[in-house]
Amino acid sequence: MRAVLKESAGPGLTVGQRPTPVCGPNDVLIRVRHAGVCGTDLHIWEWDSWAGARLKPPLVIGHEFAGEIAELGAEAAAGGLLAVGDEVTAEGHIVCGHCLQCRTGNAHLCQRTQIIGVDRDGAFAEFIAMPASNVMRLEGIPTDVGAIMDPLGNAFHTVLEAPVSGATVLVVGCGPIGCFAVGVARAAGAALVVATDLNPRRLELARCMGAHVVMNPREDDVLLRIRELTAGDGVDLVCEMSGHPAGHAQAFAAARLGGRVHLLGTPNRPTEVDFARDVIFKGLTLYGVTGRKMYATWHQMARFLRGGFDPKPVVTHRFPLERIDDAIRVIRDGQAGKVILEIST
Amino acid sequence: MRAVLKESAGPGLTVGQRPTPVCGPNDVLIRVRHAGVCGTDLHIWEWDSWAGARLKPPLVIGHEFAGEIAELGAEAAAGGLLAVGDEVTAEGHIVCGHCLQCRTGNAHLCQRTQIIGVDRDGAFAEFIAMPASNVMRLEGIPTDVGAIMDPLGNAFHTVLEAPVSGATVLVVGCGPIGCFAVGVARAAGAALVVATDLNPRRLELARCMGAHVVMNPREDDVLLRIRELTAGDGVDLVCEMSGHPAGHAQAFAAARLGGRVHLLGTPNRPTEVDFARDVIFKGLTLYGVTGRKMYATWHQMARFLRGGFDPKPVVTHRFPLERIDDAIRVIRDGQAGKVILEIST
Amino acid sequence: MRAVLKESAGPGLTVGQRPTPVCGPNDVLIRVRHAGVCGTDLHIWEWDSWAGARLKPPLVIGHEFAGEIAELGAEAAAGGLLAVGDEVTAEGHIVCGHCLQCRTGNAHLCQRTQIIGVDRDGAFAEFIAMPASNVMRLEGIPTDVGAIMDPLGNAFHTVLEAPVSGATVLVVGCGPIGCFAVGVARAAGAALVVATDLNPRRLELARCMGAHVVMNPREDDVLLRIRELTAGDGVDLVCEMSGHPAGHAQAFAAARLGGRVHLLGTPNRPTEVDFARDVIFKGLTLYGVTGRKMYATWHQMARFLRGGFDPKPVVTHRFPLERIDDAIRVIRDGQAGKVILEIST
Amino acid sequence: MRAVLKESAGPGLTVGQRPTPVCGPNDVLIRVRHAGVCGTDLHIWEWDSWAGARLKPPLVIGHEFAGEIAELGAEAAAGGLLAVGDEVTAEGHIVCGHCLQCRTGNAHLCQRTQIIGVDRDGAFAEFIAMPASNVMRLEGIPTDVGAIMDPLGNAFHTVLEAPVSGATVLVVGCGPIGCFAVGVARAAGAALVVATDLNPRRLELARCMGAHVVMNPREDDVLLRIRELTAGDGVDLVCEMSGHPAGHAQAFAAARLGGRVHLLGTPNRPTEVDFARDVIFKGLTLYGVTGRKMYATWHQMARFLRGGFDPKPVVTHRFPLERIDDAIRVIRDGQAGKVILEIST
Repeated sequence: MRAVLKESAGPGLTVGQRPTPVCGPNDVLIRVRHAGVCGTDLHIWEWDSWAGARLKPPLVIGHEFAGEIAELGAEAAAGGLLAVGDEVTAEGHIVCGHCLQCRTGNAHLCQRTQIIGVDRDGAFAEFIAMPASNVMRLEGIPTDVGAIMDPLGNAFHTVLEAPVSGATVLVVGCGPIGCFAVGVARAAGAALVVATDLNPRRLELARCMGAHVVMNPREDDVLLRIRELTAGDGVDLVCEMSGHPAGHAQAFAAARLGGRVHLLGTPNRPTEVDFARDVIFKGLTLYGVTGRKMYATWHQMARFLRGGFDPKPVVTHRFPLERIDDAIRVIRDGQAGKVILEIST
Repeated sequence: MRAVLKESAGPGLTVGQRPTPVCGPNDVLIRVRHAGVCGTDLHIWEWDSWAGARLKPPLVIGHEFAGEIAELGAEAAAGGLLAVGDEVTAEGHIVCGHCLQCRTGNAHLCQRTQIIGVDRDGAFAEFIAMPASNVMRLEGIPTDVGAIMDPLGNAFHTVLEAPVSGATVLVVGCGPIGCFAVGVARAAGAALVVATDLNPRRLELARCMGAHVVMNPREDDVLLRIRELTAGDGVDLVCEMSGHPAGHAQAFAAARLGGRVHLLGTPNRPTEVDFARDVIFKGLTLYGVTGRKMYATWHQMARFLRGGFDPKPVVTHRFPLERIDDAIRVIRDGQAGKVILEIST
Repeated sequence: MRAVLKESAGPGLTVGQRPTPVCGPNDVLIRVRHAGVCGTDLHIWEWDSWAGARLKPPLVIGHEFAGEIAELGAEAAAGGLLAVGDEVTAEGHIVCGHCLQCRTGNAHLCQRTQIIGVDRDGAFAEFIAMPASNVMRLEGIPTDVGAIMDPLGNAFHTVLEAPVSGATVLVVGCGPIGCFAVGVARAAGAALVVATDLNPRRLELARCMGAHVVMNPREDDVLLRIRELTAGDGVDLVCEMSGHPAGHAQAFAAARLGGRVHLLGTPNRPTEVDFARDVIFKGLTLYGVTGRKMYATWHQMARFLRGGFDPKPVVTHRFPLERIDDAIRVIRDGQAGKVILEIST
Repeated sequence: MRAVLKESAGPGLTVGQRPTPVCGPNDVLIRVRHAGVCGTDLHIWEWDSWAGARLKPPLVIGHEFAGEIAELGAEAAAGGLLAVGDEVTAEGHIVCGHCLQCRTGNAHLCQRTQIIGVDRDGAFAEFIAMPASNVMRLEGIPTDVGAIMDPLGNAFHTVLEAPVSGATVLVVGCGPIGCFAVGVARAAGAALVVATDLNPRRLELARCMGAHVVMNPREDDVLLRIRELTAGDGVDLVCEMSGHPAGHAQAFAAARLGGRVHLLGTPNRPTEVDFARDVIFKGLTLYGVTGRKMYATWHQMARFLRGGFDPKPVVTHRFPLERIDDAIRVIRDGQAGKVILEIST
C-alpha cells in the first residue's frame, strides 16, 4: 500500500510502498479515507530533538484519520458491534488497560501509551490496523470531519473540563485547536468568548468559529479589555493553547480570582511562574490537558457534531497523500488552519 | 487595654495600651484568651518589603485567636445565635459579601478582603471586635485549640480539596501548617502519608502527627523512595507547604500522572516550571490555597476536632502577651512548631 | 402604600393600604416596579391546607419582584456597593447565615429560612424592605425581567446542577419554570431538548423557548420516541417540573443508565417508587431542587440574561396590581405562561 | 472439575462434575481458592421469581472469588502484566466495552453486562475462565480476603461516592455489606458512624467494624438520637443497605438538609415516597449503587486493604465447597455475617 514514511533519522518524509498491516484477533483493519496533518507531523518532518529521541524509523507517520472497516479480527468480530463497511475513526493512543490510570478513568494518561504514527505505524497510509476498543463508528459524521476528531477532541477536553455554561472564556493562541476551542466554548453555552493571537489570519478563523471578541496583543491591551468585558473580574476559564511564556503570563493575569487555567499548548522551554501572586493568592486551578478522555470526550464531541456543530471553517487546505510536503509547508508557514490529506475515496 | 502594636514603620513590635474597640451594631466584642503567632507576624516584626507595602501603622497585630464574647451589637444580638459568655473563634478575613467570589462560594478570595492584624486592628490584645458573621462558637473545643484554627484551617483546606480517602499523600515542608496537614491527611483516611523537610526537629513533629514515612532530602532520595512506596506510580496528592523552588520541583516530580499538587507555601521569588513535562504531559491539576473556605472548612475542622483530632503536638511554645519578642524569636530560629500567646484567663 | 393583602384566614385576596415598611440598619427599601405572580400565590388565594398551616395573616403577599432602591439603612449604605436609584431584584429567601447549610454553600436550604410574601410581608406592594445581602443590582437587565428572576432561577438551578453541555435533556411539565428550563438547557449547550406536557398551549411555549421536540403523552409514545432520539440510551438529564406521579414514572423510565433526575415540581401526594428497577439497577442520581443557589445561580442567570438569553416569550399576561384577581384567574385556568404585575413606573 | 450447579429450574443446588472451562485468547484460567456466598446465591437456591426469570440452567453459580492463575490465553499473555501463578481476584461483571456507559466511566452500568454465576458459568468450582481485563492481581492481599472484594467493593462504592472525610454517616441495615460500609466509613475518616438493624447479632458485627453508635429501631428512637448526635442537623450521608420501605423512610428522615442517601439494599416491592417533603424541600441527592466502579473502586479498596483495613471480623463461617447447603442455610437463618467457601489450597 502507499504510505507516508519517515525512512530514517533526519529531516524530510517520503511517499512509498509498505505491506498492508496484519489484522490481529482483537484488531480492525481500516481503509483510510481522510487524515489530518498536525504540528507533531511537522516536528517529525523537521526531525527536532523530541522526534530524534522518540521515533524509531522506518515508520508510517500520521495519527488523525477516518475511514471504512475493511476487515475484523476474530475476537473483534465476536463482539458484534462493528462490521465491515462501517465508517469509523479511532483514538490514536493505544493504552495498556491495566495501569492505575487506565483503571481509574484516566486512560489518556496511561503509563504505557503508544501513539500511532509516533511509536508504531500510523495513518498516512491506505490501511491501518487498530485495536477494536479504540475504534468509534461515525454514524453520520463525514470522514473528513472524523479525520480531525483527534485535535477537535483536544479542544473539547480543554473546554469541557470546566463548568463552561454561562462562563467567560479566554482562548490564548488560535492555531487549529485554539480555533476549535472557541467554537466548543460557544456551543457549550459560554457567555463570553475572547480569543487572542499575534496572527491576524488566525484571529479571522477564531471569529468565524464564534469568538465574541478577538484581540492581537501587538495592538490591544488585552488585560485592560478583559477587565472591561468582565466588570473588572477577569475570566472564569483560560484555555492556554499557545505554549509560550507570554501566553502563560497572559493566562494567569486574565483569570479571575478562583478561576481556572487549562494548559494545552506545549512549551519548548521553561516558564518563570510567580506562584504566590499568580496561583496561590488568586486561588487558581491549573489543569494540564493531554489527549482526549477515553472515551467521554469522544461521546461529547460526537453529540455536538451530530447536533450541528461545524468545525469545517478551520479546515483551510486539502491535499492528496502524495503532496505531504506541501501540507507540511503550509503548516510551517503559519498561514494554515487545519490541513487534511485525502487518501482514498 | 494591653495590645501588641506595630507603632510605626520599621522593625520590631511594642506592647502598649489601646482603647477597647467599639462594638458596632453587627459586631461581637471578644475578650481574647489565646492567640497564635504566625510567620506573617514575623514578617511584620521584620518589616520586610511585603509588610512595608501593606501595613499602615499604628496597628494592633495578630490574626489567630479565640476567646469569650463580652458584648454583642444590637443587630448581632437580634439573630439570637450568639450570647455573651460564649467561647468563640473567628475567621480573620473580613469580606465584602457582594463581589463575584463572595456570592459564589469563594469568599476566601473576596476582592475586598481585609485581614485582621494586617489591614485593621488585630487579635494580640485583650479585646477585638469582629463582625458576627465571622464568629464561630467553639462548643467544647478549648480556646487554646480555637486560637490555632486559622492555620489548622489552612491545612484542612489544602488536604480536603482533594478526594483524600484511600489516597497517597506527600507533604513537602513541615512547618506548623505542614505538620497539621500530615495529621489531617491521616484523619481523613489517606492510605499513605509521607512528609519531607530539611529540619530534623520538624520531621519529628510530622511523625508525631502520624506521617507513615518522613524523609530529609539532604539524606534521602525522595523520588526514588516515593516510587518504591507507590508501586512506581507517584503520589495522588502533593501538599506543597514549603514555598521553595526545590519544593515545587519535588512536588511536580512526585505527583502521579493525573495527580494533584496543592500549593500553600508562599514563595518569595519566581519558580522555573517546565509546563510541558511537569503539568501537561502528566495531566496534573494544580490548586492555589488561600485561607479557609468560608465556612465549609471551619465546619469540617470542628467535626474532626470534636471527634478527637488533636493538633496540640504541634504546639511547642506558649508565652504571655508581654513576651511577644520571645515568641517571634523562637519562630525565627526555626526550632518552633506552633507558638501560642496566653492573653487572659 | 397600596398592597395586595391576605387579611385573614380563608380564600381570596384584597388590595388595600399598609404603612410603608421601616428600613432597618442592614436593609434596603425598594420601590417595586414589577412583580411576578406564582403558583404559590394561587395556593394562598385558595387558602389550601399548606397555606392555612403556614401563613399568619394579615400579610402582604408576593415574592418575585424588581424595582429601584429608595432608601438605604446605615450599615447597608456603609458597604458602598448599593446606592439610591439602583435598579435591583432580590432573593426572597431570608436566611440565618449561621446554620450548617448557610455556612457550607447551601443557604438555599437554611434551617431558619423566611420567605417574603409567605413568612413575612412580601412584594405585591409599592415598597418592600429587604436585607442588603439579598439584593442584586440589575445592571442593564430590565425590571420586568428582574421581576421573574426568582422562578427563572429555579430553572437555572435545576438545569445547571448537571453537566448539561452536549447532554440530552427531557423537561417533564411545561409550566413557566419548565418552559424556562427548556430555554436554559438550549442556552447552556444541550445537544437535544425534549419537552412534554398534556397542555398544547404550554407545548407551544416550550417550542418557542427552543425545545427540539415537544410531545403530548396523550398522543405520543414518549418513551419510545425518547429511545429513538437517543440511539436507545435514554436521556442524560430529566428535569421533573410536573410534580405528578405520572411525571415521576416518565422521568425514571426516560433517564439513561447512570443518568440524573432533578425534581422541582412539588407533588401534593406520595409517589410509589420501584427503587430497585428505577434507581439502584439504573445507577441514577436524583436531586431535589429548592430555590436558587445563593448566589451562584443568580450570577449565572445574570450572565445569560446579559448575553442575550430572553425569557420573555414565557410571559403571557400583565396586569396592574389592582387586578390581582384577574392574574390569579388566568393562572388557575391553566392557559397562562408567566403573569406579571405592573406596580409603579 | 468439581462445581456447585443449578442443574435445572427449581429450588436447591447440587455439587457435581463439569469440564474445566476453555481459556480463550483474551482469557485467564483461574484455579479458585476461596469464594464468597452471597444473598444472590440464596435467591438462586430458593429459585425465586427473579432467579426463575433470569437464569438458564444448567449453570455453575457463584460470583465472588479469588485464586491463582493457571493458564493465560495468547492475547492475555502478550500484555505481559499477568503471569501463571499470580494470585488474583476478578470483577464479576463482564461488560461490552462499547456502549455509552462503558465508554464514559460507567462500565458498572453496561447495557450488555453478563454476571458470572448468573448469566454464565461462575466461581463455585475448581476453575473459572475470565477475560484478562476483569482480573486484578492481589499483590499481598490473601485470597480469603480477595474472595470477598466483590461485596466489599459494593460497600466502598456506596460510601466513597460521597465526600466522607469528616462527615456524619448512618448505615441502615447491617448485613455483610452494611457492616463493611461501617468499616469503610471509619477508615475513610467519617467523624461519626451510626448503624441500625433489627438483629442484635448484626449490630455486634457493626460495632466490631467500628460503628460509634449502634441502634435497634425496636428499642431506640433512631431519629431522636440522630438529631442529638448531630446537633439537630441530621447526617450528611445515609447508606441504605436494607432495601426495606422502613429503611427508606428512616434514610430520608435522618438525612440533613442538602444531604445524600445512597441506596444499595435491593427492595422486593415499591416504596411510597413523599418527594416534596423528603427530597425536594430537603434538597437531597439520592444515588443508586450498582456493582463497583470499574476499576476505581477496586484500586481504592486495594489501597485500604494493603494499608491495614481488615474486613475479616465480618466473616463468620467457612465451609468446603461440598457443604454449599450448610452455607446457604446459615445465610437464610439470618445469623451469619459473610460466609466463605474453601475450594482448593
